Amino acid sequence: MNLITITIDAMGGDFGPKVTVPASILVLKKCPNLKLILVGDELAIRNEINRQAKGEHLNRIEVVHATEQVAMDELPSVALRTKKDSSMRVALNKIKEGVAQACVSAGNTGALMAIARFVLKTLPGVDRPAILATLPTIYPNKEVRILDLGANVDSSAAHLYQFAVMGSVLVSGLDNIKNPKVALLNIGQEEIKGNDQVKDTASLLTDSEVINYIGYIEGDAIFSGNADVIVCDGFVGNVALKTLEGSAKLFTYYMTKAFKRNWLTKLAALLAKPSLRYVKKSMDPGRRNGASLIGLQGIVIKSHGGAKSAAFANAIFQAVHEVENNIPELIRKEVETRLEDSE
Amino acid sequence: MNLITITIDAMGGDFGPKVTVPASILVLKKCPNLKLILVGDELAIRNEINRQAKGEHLNRIEVVHATEQVAMDELPSVALRTKKDSSMRVALNKIKEGVAQACVSAGNTGALMAIARFVLKTLPGVDRPAILATLPTIYPNKEVRILDLGANVDSSAAHLYQFAVMGSVLVSGLDNIKNPKVALLNIGQEEIKGNDQVKDTASLLTDSEVINYIGYIEGDAIFSGNADVIVCDGFVGNVALKTLEGSAKLFTYYMTKAFKRNWLTKLAALLAKPSLRYVKKSMDPGRRNGASLIGLQGIVIKSHGGAKSAAFANAIFQAVHEVENNIPELIRKEVETRLEDSE
Repeated sequence: MNLITITIDAMGGDFGPKVTVPASILVLKKCPNLKLILVGDELAIRNEINRQAKGEHLNRIEVVHATEQVAMDELPSVALRTKKDSSMRVALNKIKEGVAQACVSAGNTGALMAIARFVLKTLPGVDRPAILATLPTIYPNKEVRILDLGANVDSSAAHLYQFAVMGSVLVSGLDNIKNPKVALLNIGQEEIKGNDQVKDTASLLTDSEVINYIGYIEGDAIFSGNADVIVCDGFVGNVALKTLEGSAKLFTYYMTKAFKRNWLTKLAALLAKPSLRYVKKSMDPGRRNGASLIGLQGIVIKSHGGAKSAAFANAIFQAVHEVENNIPELIRKEVETRLEDSE
Repeated sequence: MNLITITIDAMGGDFGPKVTVPASILVLKKCPNLKLILVGDELAIRNEINRQAKGEHLNRIEVVHATEQVAMDELPSVALRTKKDSSMRVALNKIKEGVAQACVSAGNTGALMAIARFVLKTLPGVDRPAILATLPTIYPNKEVRILDLGANVDSSAAHLYQFAVMGSVLVSGLDNIKNPKVALLNIGQEEIKGNDQVKDTASLLTDSEVINYIGYIEGDAIFSGNADVIVCDGFVGNVALKTLEGSAKLFTYYMTKAFKRNWLTKLAALLAKPSLRYVKKSMDPGRRNGASLIGLQGIVIKSHGGAKSAAFANAIFQAVHEVENNIPELIRKEVETRLEDSE
């Protein structure tokens, strides 16, 4: 059993060490071969550690002090230029130094991407890293991976093609699916469908021998379970993801309104409570918390900024899973083979 | 009380006259100053009319025979070139001939847009018509209009600016809102946010004196009720709209699963049924059925293809409402004034 080392940006997210420390300990208890390096304000981190129940797993925590932290609304370029001793930067450096195999942060997404890209660099043959997340589907026990979710706007067809390769490799590596089904997010309105970006990507994917391309998919089929990987430009993907979040709020609003109408509906609400909680839990983005910054020479996982301990722990599990399956190496090999083929 | 005449593409949509005829009669009963011209297979239309209860309102129906119909999956360019006597084309011609003030169709969106554009032409100063729909928000009794939903991809900043003007005029005309709040759909991830298209549009909108521009909005705030009009490229808008539809299916799936777990949850489901029906009804796109093809020299309303009678009737009501407020004329005036100002 190989020892895995992961760094945690302990100051990132809306709650900092109050969430990152309990989450880290939760994961350490479950993964005996894991070591975590918590980076940030040492005093604050130690205080949180001291609140936890003692045990062997505490020996597998190392605390590394960092004097700064990246603000959630800081411009990525400013964070990259000025925050050399931020918890985020120091945590990412540990991968570069070969001390850790992955980094998890709930901090500023743009800054995390900018710093990770600067510190780790992209894999050879990969032009742009992308953000990949996991979403639920209406097919029992089936999830779907979607990328890019906002790392890149105005992506070219070649970029989207690379996203397809990376998504495909990640899914076969993590979920053990051979030839995962890759779809391209499009609309059904236009003459010969979609914009130039999508049409050009479609012809690249159709010609590809390494990708199991199943064609276009529309927004209403994202959750259909028909595809294993959905590829789109970061602008479009981000709008889709956020619209899903907005829809959830809309449903909750109408649900609350519906159950508050009279005493009978209030009684029904009481009885329906466990079921509604079940729905909320099933749809909860925290359950699938942990987006991959894919295409880098190292594993970087972005947690939702508002994640609580259980959700942040899921992001760490996602990192463990990617380390165990050596995702960047799989992508590197695939891209290399593909480049050789096309020469 | 002026007489309003509207043409109905009686063959459009998944159900044709079986839906369009009862819907037409429903609206005629409520609008005593309305006359409807039903275009399509005369025999099929008459058969449906004969099934309805007799009454004065039947005198306000005229049936016009058309020998062809546009298939739901037909290429717009093919429909435009070859289907000269389709119910859709003949119905649109009636506006051009000055016989009707609006047309309602549940047919092929792309074909409807292509034929409407060819027959009616765009308003002077408008480069591209757009598709505008109405969505619910979490703010009580507040709806939001969003455009474009798929008529245009790769829109320029100038096009998006025109969409903003048209949406703004429509909302002030129909909803009696002075200086409606206009937002631009964007993402929050990038350095200085968004793609070039959005950034360029933002500066046009910021400089505008006719538009009450409130800034960027992200996908999760579409339903927040903060904006009266949301502007986006047709590709992005279509993905957002379809994602909302997909989310609804996802919620329904989890809800059904949640209530089927055991006898207690099944009992709760029974009691909760009226509330869940209420939610479904509130969210039902049919309630707000009737997207406007805005920017044309005439009023064209697109109904959802799968609309039942009540929903299709709502699309006709939308047409009546736009005729009463003379929306194309309001847009023409606004665009004219704006063009003069910029000279």
